[in-house]
Amino acid sequence: MSDLWDRKTKPRGSLGRIEEVGSRIVAIRGRVPERLAAVVVVAAADHGVAAEGVSAYPPEVTAQMLANFEAGGAAVCVLARAAGAELVVVDRGVGRPTASFVDGPAMSRERVEEELRAGAALVEELDADVVALGEMGIGNSTAAAALAARYLGVAPAEVCGRGTGLDDAGVARKVAVVERALAANPVDDPTDVLAALGGFEIAFLAGVALGAARSRKLVLLDGVISSAAALAAARIEPAAREAMLAAHRSPEPAHALILDALGLEPLLDLGLRLGEGSGAALALPLLQASVALLNEMAEFEEAGVTDTGR
Amino acid sequence: MSDLWDRKTKPRGSLGRIEEVGSRIVAIRGRVPERLAAVVVVAAADHGVAAEGVSAYPPEVTAQMLANFEAGGAAVCVLARAAGAELVVVDRGVGRPTASFVDGPAMSRERVEEELRAGAALVEELDADVVALGEMGIGNSTAAAALAARYLGVAPAEVCGRGTGLDDAGVARKVAVVERALAANPVDDPTDVLAALGGFEIAFLAGVALGAARSRKLVLLDGVISSAAALAAARIEPAAREAMLAAHRSPEPAHALILDALGLEPLLDLGLRLGEGSGAALALPLLQASVALLNEMAEFEEAGVTDTGR
Repeated sequence: MSDLWDRKTKPRGSLGRIEEVGSRIVAIRGRVPERLAAVVVVAAADHGVAAEGVSAYPPEVTAQMLANFEAGGAAVCVLARAAGAELVVVDRGVGRPTASFVDGPAMSRERVEEELRAGAALVEELDADVVALGEMGIGNSTAAAALAARYLGVAPAEVCGRGTGLDDAGVARKVAVVERALAANPVDDPTDVLAALGGFEIAFLAGVALGAARSRKLVLLDGVISSAAALAAARIEPAAREAMLAAHRSPEPAHALILDALGLEPLLDLGLRLGEGSGAALALPLLQASVALLNEMAEFEEAGVTDTGR
Repeated sequence: MSDLWDRKTKPRGSLGRIEEVGSRIVAIRGRVPERLAAVVVVAAADHGVAAEGVSAYPPEVTAQMLANFEAGGAAVCVLARAAGAELVVVDRGVGRPTASFVDGPAMSRERVEEELRAGAALVEELDADVVALGEMGIGNSTAAAALAARYLGVAPAEVCGRGTGLDDAGVARKVAVVERALAANPVDDPTDVLAALGGFEIAFLAGVALGAARSRKLVLLDGVISSAAALAAARIEPAAREAMLAAHRSPEPAHALILDALGLEPLLDLGLRLGEGSGAALALPLLQASVALLNEMAEFEEAGVTDTGR
């Protein structure tokens, strides 16, 4: 693969991780795409756990933001447009929340399987080289923390962060909620864990990741919630990991732990903690640049540039 | 300035450094640009010090790469096109090298002033919001190391890296050359230091940085060589620092030291060490995204989204 890069008029390896990204794209797609076709899939749903006071925003904001996505005014809309990416917004349960997982599973086994199937079916139909994962759902950073705690076997206090803006008391509440959720849901099977501690949009995105990997598309992770969905996908089907790239690392403590567990090194580290797929959309130009370099850079011989092999 | 961001439909501060970048752009330009006009200025020149065996490439590669820039096949050409930026390539002494600074100054005081003036004049004419600095010149990472050592008062061994691909013996040679250069040029005045240890393209880019700051344009630094030029500019005219943004941090040891001295936190850290302005061009989409968000994101009230002030 490095042969693709090493004929280009530049010192070997001098484009660093941009070369690695291009090589990953070619490995998954089987060729250098003429132009990187990108789709940002934003899944939205409500969470029963939001009633526990674990978010700085009230649950009705999920529906308000869904309308904002549809009107094109949310950050991810602007960033997808800027990157020339298609935006697909999917309502998986806005106004129809999961059960609160503090007393038992968030959803049934049937429902989680339905979400996994629906996500996979969507992505298999898409004409895309890369699918970026985005989400909206008040309370879903608590679900992501609970999933991380169970899948990674770490304490709730290590994975609960401020989300969209909790104060210290809010974070303490979130830790207590995740502790109750883990105690109320003593499951281990990866799909059962996703049903118990996930959310509809998280399960749908896990399905998107699985479907993308099966149809040889790249999966670009955004923040902690989409990464928890990717972690679920990788626990359900370990080979899915091969198709994943991490766009960025957020300040949410669970995010770095999840990316480490997936063996992914993020491209950006800019203090992004908005979600929606916004960080993934911000990283898309780096992937597009890598493909443009592979397609358009001159090679040593044709350009008459001395190649010292260094 | 944060008021611009805080009305947008997202938690406060959740776009992290993208918000900071946008606020810097608005502070320098005095308004939110409708669309961020970007120009990448690549200055090329040859260096007498290249005869000392301090590069993995022979000196004729400078002229070969100048032709590659003109043909559009170099990495920076592809990346500028991808970012929708104009590329301006300037020959400041290809085939007409500086004196080798191991025995005395690389250039005269008159010549360094001519380069500073020419760089400033170029940028003052440009219709741009941001000017990215790029360079080409076999041997110029040795000049950058010498400038960093003198301006920052650090030992040559701390600022000499592998450049485009030196082995250990090559790095040792580079350290010895920088030690000789510092001994042969006992100057302190910032402009005299630039004349003694710089190169024509480096002095020209220092002029670009000065002219950009004077005409209230942003200056986007690339790797260690363009950053050494920016450091010279900031030593000549400290207010110039205000207009600077760091695109990335390269593995060259002098780069992190220079960025620290300038008080700049890089946007990217991707192991880029190509130069040419390639890293700056790769970071341009982040600046463009920030401006697009300021222009296009919905505000809480108009979008009917609940603002909790968090």
